[in-house]
Amino acid sequence: MDIEVVREDIAPFAERIVGLLEEGRYNEVKQEVNVLHPADIAELMGLVDSQKQVMLFRLLKKDLAIAVFEQLDFEHQENLLRHFTDEKVAEILNQMSPDDRMELFDELPAKVVKKLLNLLEPAQRDIAASMLGYPENSAGRIMNPRVVDLKEYYTVEQALKRFRRLNPPEELSYTAYVTDAQRRLLGQVSLRDLVLADPESQIGEIMNREVIFVSTDDDQEKVAQIIQKYDLVAVPVVDREGRLVGAVTVDDAIDIIEAEATEDIHRLAAIRTTEDEYLRAPLWRKIKNRFIWLAVLLIMGTLTSFVMQGFSSIIQAVVALSFFVPMLIDTGGNVGSQSTTVVVRGLAVGELEGKTLWKVVLAETLIGGILGILLGVIGVIRVVFLRESPLIGLVVGCSIFVIVFVSNLIGVFLPVLFKKMRLDPAIAATPVITTIVDIIGVLIYFRIAQAFLRF
Amino acid sequence: MDIEVVREDIAPFAERIVGLLEEGRYNEVKQEVNVLHPADIAELMGLVDSQKQVMLFRLLKKDLAIAVFEQLDFEHQENLLRHFTDEKVAEILNQMSPDDRMELFDELPAKVVKKLLNLLEPAQRDIAASMLGYPENSAGRIMNPRVVDLKEYYTVEQALKRFRRLNPPEELSYTAYVTDAQRRLLGQVSLRDLVLADPESQIGEIMNREVIFVSTDDDQEKVAQIIQKYDLVAVPVVDREGRLVGAVTVDDAIDIIEAEATEDIHRLAAIRTTEDEYLRAPLWRKIKNRFIWLAVLLIMGTLTSFVMQGFSSIIQAVVALSFFVPMLIDTGGNVGSQSTTVVVRGLAVGELEGKTLWKVVLAETLIGGILGILLGVIGVIRVVFLRESPLIGLVVGCSIFVIVFVSNLIGVFLPVLFKKMRLDPAIAATPVITTIVDIIGVLIYFRIAQAFLRF
Repeated sequence: MDIEVVREDIAPFAERIVGLLEEGRYNEVKQEVNVLHPADIAELMGLVDSQKQVMLFRLLKKDLAIAVFEQLDFEHQENLLRHFTDEKVAEILNQMSPDDRMELFDELPAKVVKKLLNLLEPAQRDIAASMLGYPENSAGRIMNPRVVDLKEYYTVEQALKRFRRLNPPEELSYTAYVTDAQRRLLGQVSLRDLVLADPESQIGEIMNREVIFVSTDDDQEKVAQIIQKYDLVAVPVVDREGRLVGAVTVDDAIDIIEAEATEDIHRLAAIRTTEDEYLRAPLWRKIKNRFIWLAVLLIMGTLTSFVMQGFSSIIQAVVALSFFVPMLIDTGGNVGSQSTTVVVRGLAVGELEGKTLWKVVLAETLIGGILGILLGVIGVIRVVFLRESPLIGLVVGCSIFVIVFVSNLIGVFLPVLFKKMRLDPAIAATPVITTIVDIIGVLIYFRIAQAFLRF
Repeated sequence: MDIEVVREDIAPFAERIVGLLEEGRYNEVKQEVNVLHPADIAELMGLVDSQKQVMLFRLLKKDLAIAVFEQLDFEHQENLLRHFTDEKVAEILNQMSPDDRMELFDELPAKVVKKLLNLLEPAQRDIAASMLGYPENSAGRIMNPRVVDLKEYYTVEQALKRFRRLNPPEELSYTAYVTDAQRRLLGQVSLRDLVLADPESQIGEIMNREVIFVSTDDDQEKVAQIIQKYDLVAVPVVDREGRLVGAVTVDDAIDIIEAEATEDIHRLAAIRTTEDEYLRAPLWRKIKNRFIWLAVLLIMGTLTSFVMQGFSSIIQAVVALSFFVPMLIDTGGNVGSQSTTVVVRGLAVGELEGKTLWKVVLAETLIGGILGILLGVIGVIRVVFLRESPLIGLVVGCSIFVIVFVSNLIGVFLPVLFKKMRLDPAIAATPVITTIVDIIGVLIYFRIAQAFLRF
C-alpha cells in the first residue's frame, strides 16, 4: 500500500527538515515535503521560523504551494507575502480560491487590501470586490462563487458536459444549482443524481425544487447551523435579488462552529472576544479584552467589603466568623458557575427551548436543594474539625445550604433573563455570577450568624 | 419559486399542529407536515408531548418517517418504539441507516438491544453485530458501512455502473474506495473524477493512492479532527487487518466537534461529564456529576480558613483587613480563570504546541504584570473611598498586584502541567484554579499586611 500516513506528531519531523534546510540539502527537503498533504505542510510551516517558512515555500511544487498557502494561518501568510515580489504575490492571489483569498483580505489593513486588489486579474478583482461589498462575517464574505449552475432545459448529458467544462473544485462538485435567465435559484441537482439519471432526461424533470439556501447578508453562524442541521455538504447563497452568487461549504461550517465554541468558552470566563482569534490578537488588545471585565468585577466586589463593614461589630466579637468567608463564597461561586455554564451552553446549541427550559429550572431547584444539604453537612464537619465552636459550625452549615440553593438558581435564571432581554446569555459569565453570588453570600452568612449568635 | 422555507421559529407552527391534532383534522396535518424537511419535522416532534409524537409519526409518509426517526433525539425515539408493535419496530430498524441505528443502540440498555437485534433481517443483524464489536465512541461504531468499493481493473464505465447498482446514500456518494481481492484499501476516486475521466480508462490509472483513513478502534474525536484538518467529506475506516469496512461522514464530524466543545465547557465549570448528554442524564447522575468536585473543592477551601486562623491576632487587631478578603480572592480567581480558559481551549483545539506555547507563557507573564498594576491602583482607590486607612489601601493594592500576577501564571501553568502528565488539561477547571488561587491569595494578603502594619 502506498498510502500517506497522517503524522501523529509532526514536531520531530519539523526538526529534521530544519536541520536539512540549515545544511543546504534542499533536494532532500523537496523530496520529503512535496509528497505531503497541504494541511500537513501548513502545520509544518507553523513550526519553523519565518525565514525557513520562506525557504520551504520556495521548494514546493507550484500547485501544492497554492494549496498550502490557502491553509496557512494569517500570520504566516503575511510573512510570506512580505518576502515575495509583487509578481509572485499576484500569482498566488490570482490562483487562490476566492473564499480563502477573502479570509486573508479580512485580516489585512484596508490599505494593503487595496494594493493587493490591483494585483488581481480583472475577473478575480471583480469577484473580490463584490465579496468585499457584503457585511463582515456574512455568507457573502465566506462563500465560494465557483458553483456549477445549470438551466432547466439542459439534458443530463449537456449538464455533465458543462460540469466537465467548469471543472469545479472538489468541495463544490457535489451539487449543481439550477437557475433561470435572471440567475434566480430554481432548484438543485446532486452529481449523484446526474450520474444515476437517464442521460436524455431534462434537468427540470430531475431537479429538486426544495432547496435550502441562505442570503448573502446572513451571519456565518446561522449559515453554519443550517449546514449542520440539514446535514448539507454545501448551501447555496443568493443575493438580495434572489440571484445565485455562490455557496458555503461544510469545511468552512466546521471551522465556524469550532470558532463560535471558543468564543462562548472565552465569554464564560468574562473575556471579551473580538471576531479575530484571541491568541492572535496583539498584546494590548488581549489586556483590554480581559481588563474591562476584571475592573468592573473588582469594583462590584468591593460591595462585599461594604457589606462586611456593616457587620464589623460581630466580626470584632467573633473573629472566627471571618475564617469561613472564603470557603462559603467559593462554594456559592462554584455552584453558580456550574448551573450558569449548563444553561449558557444549552441555550447556545439550542437545546433549551420552550418546555425543556422549564423542566431544567425545576430540576435545578431540586438539585440545588440536595447539593445544599450534602455540602452543608460537610461544612459542619470541617468547622468542628478546625476546633471552632459547634454553634459556628451550625452557622456555617446553614449558610452553605442557603447559599448553594440561592446561587444555583441565580446561575440558572441570569442567563435566561439576559436571553429574554435579547442580550447574549454569556454575559452571565462565571466570574460575573461568582461576584454577584459572593455579595449575596456574605449577606446571608452574617445575617444567619447574627440570628444564631443573638448579636 | 417553489423553495422550502427554513422555519426560523418553529414554536408557533408546532402550536397550530397540536391544535389540528386535537381537533382530529389529520388530513390537514398530513398536508402541512409531509412537505417539510425531516430535520424540521424532528424539531417539531421535540416540541409536542409524547402521545402527539406518536400521532404525528403515524401521519408521515413511509420514506419520510424513516428519515425523521433517524434525526430524532434518543428520548423521542425511545418513546415511539415503546408505542409501536414489534412488526412496526422491525420495519423502522431494518430501514434505518446503520450508523443512525447504532447511535440508538448505544443509548439503549443491553437487554433491549439484544431483543431489537432479533428483529433485524440477517444482513442488517450482521452489520449491527459487527459494529457492536468495536469500542464505544470508536470509528467502528459511528461509521456507515454502505461505501462504494471498486477494483483497480474496472474501467470508469464499469465503475459508474457499479455505482448506479449500489445506489449509495447521498452522504456516501461523493467518494468511491478501491480495494484489492482481500478488501484491503488501495486508493480512492471521487465521483467528480469518475465523471471527468475518459470512460475507457482504468480505475487503477485515475485513482488517488494517497488516502487518508482511520482505524475502527480510533476514537471519534480523532476521526472528527482528521475530517476537519483535511477538509474531507468522508474518511474511510479500515479494520485491524487493513480491510475497508465503512466510512465516517462529515455531518457526524460536526456533531462530534460540537459535543466535544460542550464537554470541555462543562469540565471547565468542574462538572464531570459522561459520554451521554448532560441535559439528558437522570437527576441523581446530574447531582453526582456536580457534587464530587464541589465536595473536593469545599474541603480544599477550608484550607483558607486554616490559613486565616493562623492570622487571627492581626485580624482581631485590624478587623477591616477581613473586609477585603472576598474582593481579593475573587479578583485572583477571575484572573486565573481567564488564563486557564484560554490555555485549556488552546490546547483542546491544538493551537498551543511547541513554540507557540512558550510564546503564550511569556505573553501571559507580561499581561499578568500589567493587569496587576492596573487593578492594584483601582483597589487602592476603592479602599480609600470606603474610608479605611491609606495604609490598608496600600496593603490591598500591593496584594492585588501580587495575587493577579501569581494567579495568572498558575492559570497558565496548571493545565500545561496536567497535559505534560498526560492528564486532561481541563482538570484545571476554573473552580479548581479559583480554590487554589484563594488559598495562596489569603496567604499573600496577610503576609503583606503583617509586613506593612509591622505586626
